[in-house]
Amino acid sequence: MPVLYRDERVSEAMRLVRYLQSNVESYGVLLDHEITCLLALPKALKYFPPLNFDDLITLGSRGMEMADQLMRNSTKTEKRSATISLDDVTLLAPVLSPPKIVCLGLNYKDHAEEQGRKTPDEPVIFMKPRTAIIGPDRPIVRSRLVKQLDYEAELAIVIGEKGKEIPVSEARKHIFGYTAFNDVSARDIQFKDKQWTRGKSFDTFAPIGPCITTVNQIDDPNDLGVSARVNGELRQDSSTKNMVFGVYEIVHYISQVMTLEPGDLIATGTPAGVGVFMKPKPRFLSPGDLVEVEIEKIGTLRNPVAKEVQSS
Amino acid sequence: MPVLYRDERVSEAMRLVRYLQSNVESYGVLLDHEITCLLALPKALKYFPPLNFDDLITLGSRGMEMADQLMRNSTKTEKRSATISLDDVTLLAPVLSPPKIVCLGLNYKDHAEEQGRKTPDEPVIFMKPRTAIIGPDRPIVRSRLVKQLDYEAELAIVIGEKGKEIPVSEARKHIFGYTAFNDVSARDIQFKDKQWTRGKSFDTFAPIGPCITTVNQIDDPNDLGVSARVNGELRQDSSTKNMVFGVYEIVHYISQVMTLEPGDLIATGTPAGVGVFMKPKPRFLSPGDLVEVEIEKIGTLRNPVAKEVQSS
Repeated sequence: MPVLYRDERVSEAMRLVRYLQSNVESYGVLLDHEITCLLALPKALKYFPPLNFDDLITLGSRGMEMADQLMRNSTKTEKRSATISLDDVTLLAPVLSPPKIVCLGLNYKDHAEEQGRKTPDEPVIFMKPRTAIIGPDRPIVRSRLVKQLDYEAELAIVIGEKGKEIPVSEARKHIFGYTAFNDVSARDIQFKDKQWTRGKSFDTFAPIGPCITTVNQIDDPNDLGVSARVNGELRQDSSTKNMVFGVYEIVHYISQVMTLEPGDLIATGTPAGVGVFMKPKPRFLSPGDLVEVEIEKIGTLRNPVAKEVQSS
Repeated sequence: MPVLYRDERVSEAMRLVRYLQSNVESYGVLLDHEITCLLALPKALKYFPPLNFDDLITLGSRGMEMADQLMRNSTKTEKRSATISLDDVTLLAPVLSPPKIVCLGLNYKDHAEEQGRKTPDEPVIFMKPRTAIIGPDRPIVRSRLVKQLDYEAELAIVIGEKGKEIPVSEARKHIFGYTAFNDVSARDIQFKDKQWTRGKSFDTFAPIGPCITTVNQIDDPNDLGVSARVNGELRQDSSTKNMVFGVYEIVHYISQVMTLEPGDLIATGTPAGVGVFMKPKPRFLSPGDLVEVEIEKIGTLRNPVAKEVQSS
């Protein structure tokens, strides 16, 4: 049995990726250095799975089962011939068009402390536009309007099933999976406006990826390592254990306000260690820097920082 | 010539509506008390127009021309037979799935004054989720979590053409049209959180409609009456002349931050007269109230206020 297909008892549809190969978009299962293309396993189902990964997510648990069956019902030979090297593809943001991206502020005790603020008694939220999304390895572009560019490593929830007023005990059923999220922020604009939206909504300010780890693969999302590195230097190093509101509480709270829809992203907040609160003085991101957000059981989301190139 | 088709020299595709008739969705041109169904004029074009109004908007100026040609190239008899009474339809929110809803805060001098705040030197923004959208006559639901429910009458811009870094002089080309918007707000939550998003993002907190008046029908969007009535009592009565940032400046500013996409809504802020700042004391909305937002050249957006009915 090849080591590639670990943990077969649980599910093979563990870490799902969207990618480009020779300019054709597809999606598949991420292995160590390879991807098994799920659209290249046509014999495994009686029908063709959605061509579009966003549409698979929209099917929620049925989509997850589909991915699972595509792997389970294929022979090793079929899987082998559907498997390509990571070197031959470009990974894309796993979600392209979320109906909404809700983000939490002040959701880690240590991050609230480092800025001398109390933790809230209910989640404080803001939103980012889908136009901010970029995938792995794509540059975070520092607009000429931005002086103080900063990172925030976060675990993001990907919603798989629509819901309103979701009890904490039911929250897991509404989650498709998890991905890594960098809540890139222009601190100068964020603090000037007081409302956080503008400083966090620039194009490229929502890197996500590299994959979605499906919900069935993560027993406890409230016990995952979360870290950020800039040019290899560890800046944030925490665990989702330190969140004020855990994943299921967050789903519960937000669904009391707004209906959650398949594909919605919820970024769960960032721990201590962001650039703006570093001592003795802030350290912001500059063009040429490489930012890495790592979430346990998901992987590392890497994005370089680039200077704005004025479009014609 | 029937009085129904006013202003034929400019365009007949003046006020566009999305609606349900016998549970079938369609869209058409709003006349005084009737609608001419654009999908019931099949001879006017060599091809069939988009079945979905959101898709027509996504075509931008081509979509507008299509609507225009459907009317122009049809005979009076054809148009007559495609015309139905407003009484026989349910108007829907003219935009169902905007990629984003960006809203401005503090964009009227008088509204900034009534709360003792300075007007900002750049637009202050926040976002609402699409799940907050409702159409005309649909109830604004006061969640049990909300104590201080309030209205905000606003002109909303509907984007028709994608753009980034749009100069003020080019902004008009990116606009499909305008609609009326009620930026419904839970003041208790808005002020508690300081971030405005949660208190403004409840389901039903973004009534829009009744129609989209296409951009070619409004010479100067910065000179339109904006008013709000509660149970017939005039509460807000102003003009977009009093905006701090005009429509084209807003498009310019926001597009410096994020790419604007077809279907995006931008709510341009509200004038003085909201319930929370009324003297001698605040007057909030209660179940049973009727809120009307009227924008000149667009029409009146009416929504009753209802109590939350706990879903099972």
